Amino acid sequence: MSNPFLSEDPGIRPRRPMMAVVLGNTMLSTVPGISGAGPTPEKTLLTPVLDAELITNGAITSMPARPNTPTGCPTPASITRSMMELTGLSPIFINSGLAHTPTVPCLDVYGRPGGDPRREDAVPDAPLLFERGEAIGRILANYSDLLMLGECVPGGTTTALCVLRALGYDASVSSAFPRNPLDLKEAVCREVFTRIRETGVEEPVGILRAAGDPMMPVAAGIASTYSGEIIFAGGTQMLAVAAVLKALGRRVPHLATTVYVRDDPSAGFSRSVAEVGTTAYYVDPDFKNIGHPGLARYCIGEVKEGAGAGGAMVLAYLMGHRPEEISRKILDFVMKYA
Amino acid sequence: MSNPFLSEDPGIRPRRPMMAVVLGNTMLSTVPGISGAGPTPEKTLLTPVLDAELITNGAITSMPARPNTPTGCPTPASITRSMMELTGLSPIFINSGLAHTPTVPCLDVYGRPGGDPRREDAVPDAPLLFERGEAIGRILANYSDLLMLGECVPGGTTTALCVLRALGYDASVSSAFPRNPLDLKEAVCREVFTRIRETGVEEPVGILRAAGDPMMPVAAGIASTYSGEIIFAGGTQMLAVAAVLKALGRRVPHLATTVYVRDDPSAGFSRSVAEVGTTAYYVDPDFKNIGHPGLARYCIGEVKEGAGAGGAMVLAYLMGHRPEEISRKILDFVMKYA
Repeated sequence: MSNPFLSEDPGIRPRRPMMAVVLGNTMLSTVPGISGAGPTPEKTLLTPVLDAELITNGAITSMPARPNTPTGCPTPASITRSMMELTGLSPIFINSGLAHTPTVPCLDVYGRPGGDPRREDAVPDAPLLFERGEAIGRILANYSDLLMLGECVPGGTTTALCVLRALGYDASVSSAFPRNPLDLKEAVCREVFTRIRETGVEEPVGILRAAGDPMMPVAAGIASTYSGEIIFAGGTQMLAVAAVLKALGRRVPHLATTVYVRDDPSAGFSRSVAEVGTTAYYVDPDFKNIGHPGLARYCIGEVKEGAGAGGAMVLAYLMGHRPEEISRKILDFVMKYA
Repeated sequence: MSNPFLSEDPGIRPRRPMMAVVLGNTMLSTVPGISGAGPTPEKTLLTPVLDAELITNGAITSMPARPNTPTGCPTPASITRSMMELTGLSPIFINSGLAHTPTVPCLDVYGRPGGDPRREDAVPDAPLLFERGEAIGRILANYSDLLMLGECVPGGTTTALCVLRALGYDASVSSAFPRNPLDLKEAVCREVFTRIRETGVEEPVGILRAAGDPMMPVAAGIASTYSGEIIFAGGTQMLAVAAVLKALGRRVPHLATTVYVRDDPSAGFSRSVAEVGTTAYYVDPDFKNIGHPGLARYCIGEVKEGAGAGGAMVLAYLMGHRPEEISRKILDFVMKYA
């Protein structure tokens, strides 16, 4: 059924829905120009901690910062927070490997931030993180029947590009920048390829170890054991995890993301989704007409997605909230601090 | 109603039960003679990590260790594990402050091990840990309607004694040793008193800061915000948390523990429960006649309780499992490695 808010209805009406977001770092986000998720390359490392704080508490209090991007758009975490307020859900954050200590409780797998895959194996503990993800999937399945699983990893579209390519996909990836720094990402990817070709790694978890980030094995492990319905909340980064699961012969989740990811001409997202053989649900919160210039800039290609924002909107919809309520709640929340 | 298995029926039939165990360390467990929860005083610090590993995975694989006490009794974590197998529940571990990195995923508040309250404020971050406990209580309430909340803190009966006394109770406490080292605990407690009397601290979270362990503010915070039914799984340590909640004017949970704690003449547990003004449910798994010499030693005062074991048995009962099933499952599990 066509629906202006949601491209396709997943047909799930959860009784015990759960939202979870896997936080992680990759040192690639500190390479100038790679990530738009922070005021400076170094400070992108802090973004997952601040996003989790905003989504948990409704405000960033651990430092003087507003949940806006450097160009003044509300961060996607603001959208996720507003959806948690609307639905009354408390999201579970999963620390897969962060450079900074979180300021809110996280389900922790005791990993480390991902290294620079041009120079070294980025996630030496990938097999262990996969196992700990499997343990988390079993736990979460005990207490919910639908898991909406998102991520927050600055620089993660570049690791996603490396992983998708290493798995044999001719993929491109999205970006939080209006002008996707694809040349830079491609250059990184070529260097990573040269390095991993020498090691001859081909199996999926080995590819994550060489070229991924810590979020990926954890999210893949969770999806492997979670026994309820699961939807990946996100764009190219979660698609890379879906591709890993396909290569492992495991269940491949559907995805929920924004139309802004789908409509990014540089990413070719829909085509990659089809190549991985899964389905993506695209949510259109009509930011163009919402009455907020920062949100409207999502429509011309800024930010687009992150911190499970697209999936959080889809989840609110599946829980029975109307599109107008969803848009209104987002506007109300961002106006409070605008 | 009298019941040979359970002293009193809490009358709760949960639809979405959850088991959680707060892990923590206090440096008091490294004082020789204080804690029986480990082969040496120094190694007691590792016990919460090994207990969580056993309960999560069904075996200790990170090091060559069997889940027996130094004297050959099955650890209480073995009982908790067997109840998780029986009920199909996956417990959630909460890291309130550990000396060693866990080997299984934990919901982490990013605390630190408790210091020695004779020399310094034991939990300088107690107010922050209380807040993070409150955040966890909100999260867990989203995904369950009954929370059975236990603890694993070697040396924690001594911090419990300090806290109960500082709150004005004429309490004694239990011990994992058959002969409770009460003289030693009392000596520690006197030293702690001398120190905190000088600082004049009287309010409950200040007492936890001065004399408690990190489990206590986290568990108290969880109980403050958890909106479903909550039962504290444990003896004197959880009673100390209940006493803190009473002093704070918050809801005071009931407790679930073993008859071996109740019947410890040195602890005077029932009397302290009455003084705090709450109720304890005592489970009798009939270890005397179960057919295992190590379990039978629980009846002559060894181990008694720990890692939520008593509460886990009560939870299995509330979920509809018969006493015979519960005892049989425990025996089967401990025979596997005996």
